Amino acid sequence: MKWSIKQLVETKPWAGWVLFFITSVFVFILGLLASSIIERRAEAQFVYTLKVEYDPLEPRSDIWGQNFPKEYYSYIQTADTTFKSLFNVSDDEDLLESNPKFVILFAGNPFSRDYNHARGHFYAVIDVVKTLRTGAPNDTTPSPQPNTCWTCKSSDVPRLINKLGVQGFYKGSFDKLGHECVNYIGCVDCHDAKTMNLKITRPALIEAFQRLGKDINKSSHQEMRSLVCAQCHVEYFFDNRDGKEKYLTFPWDSGFTVEAMERYYDAFAFSDWKHAISKAPMLKAQHTEYEMFLFGVHYRSGLACADCHMPYKSEGGVKYTDHHITSPLRYISRTCQVCHRESEEELRNRIYERQKTIKELRNILENELVIAHFEAKHAWDIGSNEKEMQPVLQLIRQAQWRWDFVACGHGNAFHAPLESARILGNGIAKVQEARRQLQRIFAKYNNFDVKIPDISTKEKAQKAIGIDYEKLKRDKQEFMKNMVPKWLEKAKEREAKYYIKNV
Amino acid sequence: MKWSIKQLVETKPWAGWVLFFITSVFVFILGLLASSIIERRAEAQFVYTLKVEYDPLEPRSDIWGQNFPKEYYSYIQTADTTFKSLFNVSDDEDLLESNPKFVILFAGNPFSRDYNHARGHFYAVIDVVKTLRTGAPNDTTPSPQPNTCWTCKSSDVPRLINKLGVQGFYKGSFDKLGHECVNYIGCVDCHDAKTMNLKITRPALIEAFQRLGKDINKSSHQEMRSLVCAQCHVEYFFDNRDGKEKYLTFPWDSGFTVEAMERYYDAFAFSDWKHAISKAPMLKAQHTEYEMFLFGVHYRSGLACADCHMPYKSEGGVKYTDHHITSPLRYISRTCQVCHRESEEELRNRIYERQKTIKELRNILENELVIAHFEAKHAWDIGSNEKEMQPVLQLIRQAQWRWDFVACGHGNAFHAPLESARILGNGIAKVQEARRQLQRIFAKYNNFDVKIPDISTKEKAQKAIGIDYEKLKRDKQEFMKNMVPKWLEKAKEREAKYYIKNV
Repeated sequence: MKWSIKQLVETKPWAGWVLFFITSVFVFILGLLASSIIERRAEAQFVYTLKVEYDPLEPRSDIWGQNFPKEYYSYIQTADTTFKSLFNVSDDEDLLESNPKFVILFAGNPFSRDYNHARGHFYAVIDVVKTLRTGAPNDTTPSPQPNTCWTCKSSDVPRLINKLGVQGFYKGSFDKLGHECVNYIGCVDCHDAKTMNLKITRPALIEAFQRLGKDINKSSHQEMRSLVCAQCHVEYFFDNRDGKEKYLTFPWDSGFTVEAMERYYDAFAFSDWKHAISKAPMLKAQHTEYEMFLFGVHYRSGLACADCHMPYKSEGGVKYTDHHITSPLRYISRTCQVCHRESEEELRNRIYERQKTIKELRNILENELVIAHFEAKHAWDIGSNEKEMQPVLQLIRQAQWRWDFVACGHGNAFHAPLESARILGNGIAKVQEARRQLQRIFAKYNNFDVKIPDISTKEKAQKAIGIDYEKLKRDKQEFMKNMVPKWLEKAKEREAKYYIKNV
Repeated sequence: MKWSIKQLVETKPWAGWVLFFITSVFVFILGLLASSIIERRAEAQFVYTLKVEYDPLEPRSDIWGQNFPKEYYSYIQTADTTFKSLFNVSDDEDLLESNPKFVILFAGNPFSRDYNHARGHFYAVIDVVKTLRTGAPNDTTPSPQPNTCWTCKSSDVPRLINKLGVQGFYKGSFDKLGHECVNYIGCVDCHDAKTMNLKITRPALIEAFQRLGKDINKSSHQEMRSLVCAQCHVEYFFDNRDGKEKYLTFPWDSGFTVEAMERYYDAFAFSDWKHAISKAPMLKAQHTEYEMFLFGVHYRSGLACADCHMPYKSEGGVKYTDHHITSPLRYISRTCQVCHRESEEELRNRIYERQKTIKELRNILENELVIAHFEAKHAWDIGSNEKEMQPVLQLIRQAQWRWDFVACGHGNAFHAPLESARILGNGIAKVQEARRQLQRIFAKYNNFDVKIPDISTKEKAQKAIGIDYEKLKRDKQEFMKNMVPKWLEKAKEREAKYYIKNV
């Protein structure tokens, strides 16, 4: 029997229709198959071949990188400091120089010594070692900071917590584990070595969730794509209550708003430091990115940090998560434009508008706060007493807490512009209330002659509050020259013994 | 010749393929045709059949409605006052009762007598006639308001401006044309009677555009879908300069921000009224909806007022523009959800969040302003002079202008939440600066004993500023009983003579 249309339809006239139907179905299935193959190629990354075997707590990301070269290569791009924001702030700008008012706002706090714009994860260890805030420890003088400070800086932390226990890791001064914490934040901080699944490695986040009655292990993958960041990009303090020692704690028990955290701190009269000019009991807000993100429309729309800060990337037909954690404005086509149909320029400008508005309100509050500190000092100087000053200092504390809560977070003006504005508006009301009460005190003591020194440069502002910058710098250089090389030497010896095997 | 596949392929074996190709193309074209018919049916509304002929300036919308029954029927739904906003404010709520602070803020201005939440367009005439703000004109006493007030209330205005000229229409008191302005805003205010195209009928908008060097006639249809609203939903004042008389003017020459309009007013020391308590030279902001909309993301995304306030509706297979101008929250499925894929509840909550935040900041400013007015009064009472008070009064003016600019506009908290917050934040700074300066004055005269009367109810607050509400109400009732029926009688006689013809 020969198979031609002619012969077939000779026998059965309707067979032509059947034949075309069968052909169509076949072509359709062929299409499905082709599409499926393309999809599978794109997903191929998830089926990885291990080339190297190592300890699950291996701190060195370059070792992990042998198995995951694309992720590792993109991660070390966090060394790139070329990005310039709207206000032309580069990634390592000296903020005290560009805004000497910070010196006054943080008088009495280490941030008045040294406050640079944060650089990428690549610099996490070197920057915390170099900053004047961690002092210049030597054989006789410890660092003024606790060892807790390492928690968010180094991928050696999971290994050390495993070895020393949580409290054992936190206690002691910053220089205690200088020779142990030598690898900047890396793979092991967010990934399980076996499954490569996202993993929470820092106790503070797990404990904060527990106190809120939540089991962080029940988080979805999408939630985890924010929570691994929330291990560090949050407000925190060092808890010394109930026998704890500098125990890293997130103040979320009453909620995530600026007011809720304030209530938390107020409940046990906590303060981070006493202001050197006004004597106000201050709170230092710390990179409140995760909390503020919760109040923005992007969180409400189901996005995670990684959606914009680690967008998918395609290379050689393989799709993977870009580990160059950075401003989404660098790659608008892979971030904003995934959802928004506007041009890059329009999207950038929309963000800039938000940033400008928040900067405007922030500046109002900033300027008022600087004056308020000096006015409070004047009130003390002319004889005001604790009782009179207490409500004023409380208002200054509240106002600066609000200012700092917004100012300290990268991207707050974008993540939650309206919440930022709400907080700053409340802050402005508080600082002005403080300044009005101070007028009453000046009237009582009949002396309105407030003196504000020249604080027009970092140098002058630091001099005004008695900081000997040159000495701090000299001591730091000594420390960098004498202590740090020894730390690195010890680390090298130790790491030479770590288990690694090519497979 | 018989047409069967069998016979055809007997002659030419490839003919089966050709036949199926031709059939497929035919079916495809049939589909296109069907779709085109459905489209055309939906567009059929634009090819309307006139049933009635009338004057191009015909003020009565029910006459137009005979040609456009769907649009007319939906328009008179603006009579519906059942919608409740987040703060449970109904469409005709007495705002002085729900917030007696308004009485203080507007002391000396007619708004302190009577201030109801705006109702729909349906009530435009009756509400401006009934409000105590327009007084109780009779044969001997004119209304305290100029005739200009009618401009945004009645569809008789195009007809009257055509007859009297622009300045001729504006001049005189409100009662001058009470018998002429009897039809609430309607078809003729926004539509050309011949083409039904959108049309600007109010001179103030055309003139404001001219001063900005723009020809409003070159606006796109989409722009017109906002501009017809901008004829009224904008900030304005009555200009008496250069021989003008109560000439309706939009203060946009320097720009659309709160600061730009303030500069405009400051340039000729304009004030709407002198505050009865503080003596500050005040500005009254007026429903700044269009201007604030310009600062929001929906304007930036190319939307017009009508997109959300007059969304398309489908009835009996015919698509038309819903003329029930109202809150888009009534019909989220036809407004927000056209673009946003979130649930109604989520979208409503997002708007509520914005409204709550703006309300929070507004309340701070509101409370401070009330106190500032009384503190300024105290300063005058204890002997302060013009020179001392001038900067304080200027700050109070600036702060309340900012408060009012946000508070006066329906939907500002949604249209431009961040701009609203920015303005309120600046307002808070201004009022607090005023209050601080007042402390210095109190200190100078050594008297801090500010008295704030009981203003906890509308009644008490009005009494505190010397308003005889009962008398105002009695006079109004007289006016409603004696004058208004005469106006309506005259109008009836006149309208009986208008040209109408069934075609």
